[in-house]
Amino acid sequence: MVRIALGVEYDGSGFAGWQWQPNRRSVQAELEKALSKVANHPVTVICAGRTDAGVHALEQVVHFDVNVERDLHAWLLGGNSNLPDEIRITWVKQVVDDFHARYSAIARLYRYMILNRPVKSAILGKQTTWCYHPLDADVMNKAAQHLVGNHDFTSFRAQGCQSKSPFRIVHFVEVYREGEKVIIQICANAFLHHMVRNIAGVLMDIGIGKQAEDWTLALLVAKKRELGGATAPPSGLYLESVYYPPCYGFTKHPAFNRLPGDTKRFDSPLVNVG
Amino acid sequence: MVRIALGVEYDGSGFAGWQWQPNRRSVQAELEKALSKVANHPVTVICAGRTDAGVHALEQVVHFDVNVERDLHAWLLGGNSNLPDEIRITWVKQVVDDFHARYSAIARLYRYMILNRPVKSAILGKQTTWCYHPLDADVMNKAAQHLVGNHDFTSFRAQGCQSKSPFRIVHFVEVYREGEKVIIQICANAFLHHMVRNIAGVLMDIGIGKQAEDWTLALLVAKKRELGGATAPPSGLYLESVYYPPCYGFTKHPAFNRLPGDTKRFDSPLVNVG
Repeated sequence: MVRIALGVEYDGSGFAGWQWQPNRRSVQAELEKALSKVANHPVTVICAGRTDAGVHALEQVVHFDVNVERDLHAWLLGGNSNLPDEIRITWVKQVVDDFHARYSAIARLYRYMILNRPVKSAILGKQTTWCYHPLDADVMNKAAQHLVGNHDFTSFRAQGCQSKSPFRIVHFVEVYREGEKVIIQICANAFLHHMVRNIAGVLMDIGIGKQAEDWTLALLVAKKRELGGATAPPSGLYLESVYYPPCYGFTKHPAFNRLPGDTKRFDSPLVNVG
Repeated sequence: MVRIALGVEYDGSGFAGWQWQPNRRSVQAELEKALSKVANHPVTVICAGRTDAGVHALEQVVHFDVNVERDLHAWLLGGNSNLPDEIRITWVKQVVDDFHARYSAIARLYRYMILNRPVKSAILGKQTTWCYHPLDADVMNKAAQHLVGNHDFTSFRAQGCQSKSPFRIVHFVEVYREGEKVIIQICANAFLHHMVRNIAGVLMDIGIGKQAEDWTLALLVAKKRELGGATAPPSGLYLESVYYPPCYGFTKHPAFNRLPGDTKRFDSPLVNVG
């Protein structure tokens, strides 16, 4: 048995999400189909973070086990030649048997892209979220800093979120403007269901002046989802990268240099999260 | 009669090009259909630069004449509500009767976006051109500088190009890297058919080291299209902006601040070009 890890990029706009669902187009099903052809036997993949319908990934990480010896490059070339254009394997690595794409992950990095201008984009409609009202990225950034740390994120989780604990550790978050775009980059040990989109919704309400800068803090304290903002659309959301213990030998996304030196995997009931 | 000018953004990947063609989906036909509904009479639009199939625009400029008085905002809102998602009117302006989107233009700015990494993009496949081989953007930029000035661009024009003259004035050109992207930004009084894509093809051959830095110069001198590089794909090409004499009162794209102060409309047989 050989365990292989992959980096996977995808445009989520044409998929019902990461996870396999009967009669729906999912990233997982496409990837398993493509890799099974290369392996010549059925392959099941496990990912670092299950993204929702319409959510994209710049670097999702998956692992799978195979019974065949293949040149590592065959997984990339063969996999990509069997995948639809909107899914690309970007790297391949053989890993030790105790590596697990989800449970070994120390931190996840997400990016939320807002196009902030009067008219919708003709070109980036499915790759950004459109906001008509002018956003104050500096105020959004200040508001976002209240979220850093180990908090109960009940006000920011989806109704149906199945995680046992509402606690997550936000390591860092940054909101900044690049021309017509406002970008939220957020890193946590893991995220609750809809957590980034709910944070984005709250920060957008603050950015347009509908709510005060300390609303994020008030929501953390209140622990009531019904007080929070609207869930921002999936089109602006990207799983940007996943961080694993250095022993596994992955290339580190530069943003993870900001993690505290003693950041560890969150070994608690929370380990079982995406 | 009222003459109206519009800024138009589009994703060209689903269109047979700007120009109306029987039984094909064109940007012009979609725009005329949408504006005719707002005007309540048939409208014909004239553009600054006719883009080919698959080529995008960040700011195409068009003008049209109508017999009705409408609040200017109605052209934007009504036009956009009748347009497909991949075409957006970004601004509207009433102009004097002697304004002509094509003939009044002093300069056009194009952008060519190359994704330079080992694997194709899952997300930007139709919005960039993919180049596997590492590109040296600095060498490409040096090579591009030979093109600046008033030259015979025979080596860079399409076989079927219908312009009477092969001369064009390249005002400035810049090649630079932004992470995995290499961007060519080029400004000329006007462009021959396929001129930007042929320049991009030549610069890519230079960037991967297949040709020397002064190949651009050799091609200018040779005046033979068959010696040139491959025509680069349309997916990476964007009409970025168009510059008109200040008297018309348009907002000036910051890149046009680089135009020489005495830049004038090219009043010669060349005036009749896109």
